[in-house]
Amino acid sequence: MVTTTSYVTNVKSTVHFSCISNQHRSHLNTKLKSTTLRMSMTQTPYWASLHADIEAHLKQTITIKEPLVVFEPMHHLIFTAPKTTVPALCLATCELVGGQRHQAISAASALLLMEAATYTHEHLPLTDRPRPMINHVYGPNMELLTGDGIVPFGFELLARSDGGENSERILKVMVEISRAVGSGGGVIDAQYGKILYSGSDGEEKCHVEEIRHVVEKYEGRLHSCGAVCGGVLGGGCEEEIERLRKFGYYVGIIQGMIKWGFKEDHKEVVEARNLAIQELKFFKDKEVDAIKTFLNI
Amino acid sequence: MVTTTSYVTNVKSTVHFSCISNQHRSHLNTKLKSTTLRMSMTQTPYWASLHADIEAHLKQTITIKEPLVVFEPMHHLIFTAPKTTVPALCLATCELVGGQRHQAISAASALLLMEAATYTHEHLPLTDRPRPMINHVYGPNMELLTGDGIVPFGFELLARSDGGENSERILKVMVEISRAVGSGGGVIDAQYGKILYSGSDGEEKCHVEEIRHVVEKYEGRLHSCGAVCGGVLGGGCEEEIERLRKFGYYVGIIQGMIKWGFKEDHKEVVEARNLAIQELKFFKDKEVDAIKTFLNI
Repeated sequence: MVTTTSYVTNVKSTVHFSCISNQHRSHLNTKLKSTTLRMSMTQTPYWASLHADIEAHLKQTITIKEPLVVFEPMHHLIFTAPKTTVPALCLATCELVGGQRHQAISAASALLLMEAATYTHEHLPLTDRPRPMINHVYGPNMELLTGDGIVPFGFELLARSDGGENSERILKVMVEISRAVGSGGGVIDAQYGKILYSGSDGEEKCHVEEIRHVVEKYEGRLHSCGAVCGGVLGGGCEEEIERLRKFGYYVGIIQGMIKWGFKEDHKEVVEARNLAIQELKFFKDKEVDAIKTFLNI
Repeated sequence: MVTTTSYVTNVKSTVHFSCISNQHRSHLNTKLKSTTLRMSMTQTPYWASLHADIEAHLKQTITIKEPLVVFEPMHHLIFTAPKTTVPALCLATCELVGGQRHQAISAASALLLMEAATYTHEHLPLTDRPRPMINHVYGPNMELLTGDGIVPFGFELLARSDGGENSERILKVMVEISRAVGSGGGVIDAQYGKILYSGSDGEEKCHVEEIRHVVEKYEGRLHSCGAVCGGVLGGGCEEEIERLRKFGYYVGIIQGMIKWGFKEDHKEVVEARNLAIQELKFFKDKEVDAIKTFLNI
């Protein structure tokens, strides 16, 4: 299990992080104590049920076949990347607006694939990233290529999920995913931000504001995207989708800040939770208890 | 101008290549003499006209805006990557089946973006790629991220090119592009092949059969994809599209073999050209002179 930190006492305080990786930070301020990464959310039965469906769909889709040199690393890197709440949130919002889980399963799977590719490339041993940050089963060249292969596969999965009646919704979802995982104020921007904040050795003092900025772009944007995709594919109306966009964003802030080591009762986490609950009030005729578990309540 | 080799005398002969890169091979068999890379095709007025339209479309789409740290490298890497015949072929086949150039301009642009991303990642200084293969304006981390950002942007460009009437064709084209640039027997497979064929220092004796194998997967598959995309978006019928798939494949064999240093009159090039002409016979009612220039005739 990957570990990270908790206990950041002050928004204005400065904490030592490796800004290169969200998942692995071994050089930590001694004030910070270690705790389990990846939100308690992933221990709830609802998340587990959603995530199991996505993994089952992917396992059915990505069989280990010839050429093994291509599919074996792809399979390995997809299923060993850290689990997140993004793909499951996509299914959850689909259900919230009255859709069936299967309607959003390809989008949720595509989101999982994008995150796996990002994780793989984030830990690639480049010549300007001197320290190996995780154990690598494959060589850098293979990991680079595999990441490069996973992304188009995600888009393919989504593109061919249409039976012919849903193509406009799927294209809408593709634009959302492309922007969130690309340079549209999402993952790539967050990663650029991390490079800028980091020193030459990949370490530095990151201000809480900078962490918040990265979390907004990264987890905020991805969760927002996941929530919108589920809403679109579940047949939500425009107002519902825009509410879900904001709800997803706050879910991302909560999950991201906790991942970076902030406590559940930190004021930024509490504030995001309250704002998320406000958005859910729009769905007063719906069953919202299940999706509330994404707020760690 | 990038240079490569010509004059491979025998299909069974062994030639020394760097298998890491198609574009830059500095260690060459002394038998091979240098010539201009990138087919004479790119000097024809037809190609120039098609390619100019694609670049104009992309320049309009990808403005250098804030954050400069994201868009400046993206702009640079897209417009400095070597020009190929793939995007132009997409427009050419669209015109061949009676479509208008603008109908395929987003797909052609997406193909150019995918090739630019591939080129960028192919030359990334990884820890198991010790020698710098080209001059790098940006650090490895930035180049990795920029390549990662370009691919989703290509899919986004395509996904939002639809005015609402063409979504099924666009999804079809997305599946084609995803497979060609991903692990569906295309670019990624070719790159895996190159790793397998190469020695630990990135150099080795590549048999002509192995070059042919890489060319089939790489240039063959990409040109085939480009030709199909244009046919689909131009409104070609199923039979036309399947003819274009084969035609594009042979164009890719010709352009790829020449890029690897085979002469215009090498038997594999001549054979591919004859097969391509056979496919064009299906379009006997159409104007085929322009598209024939892709066969270097």
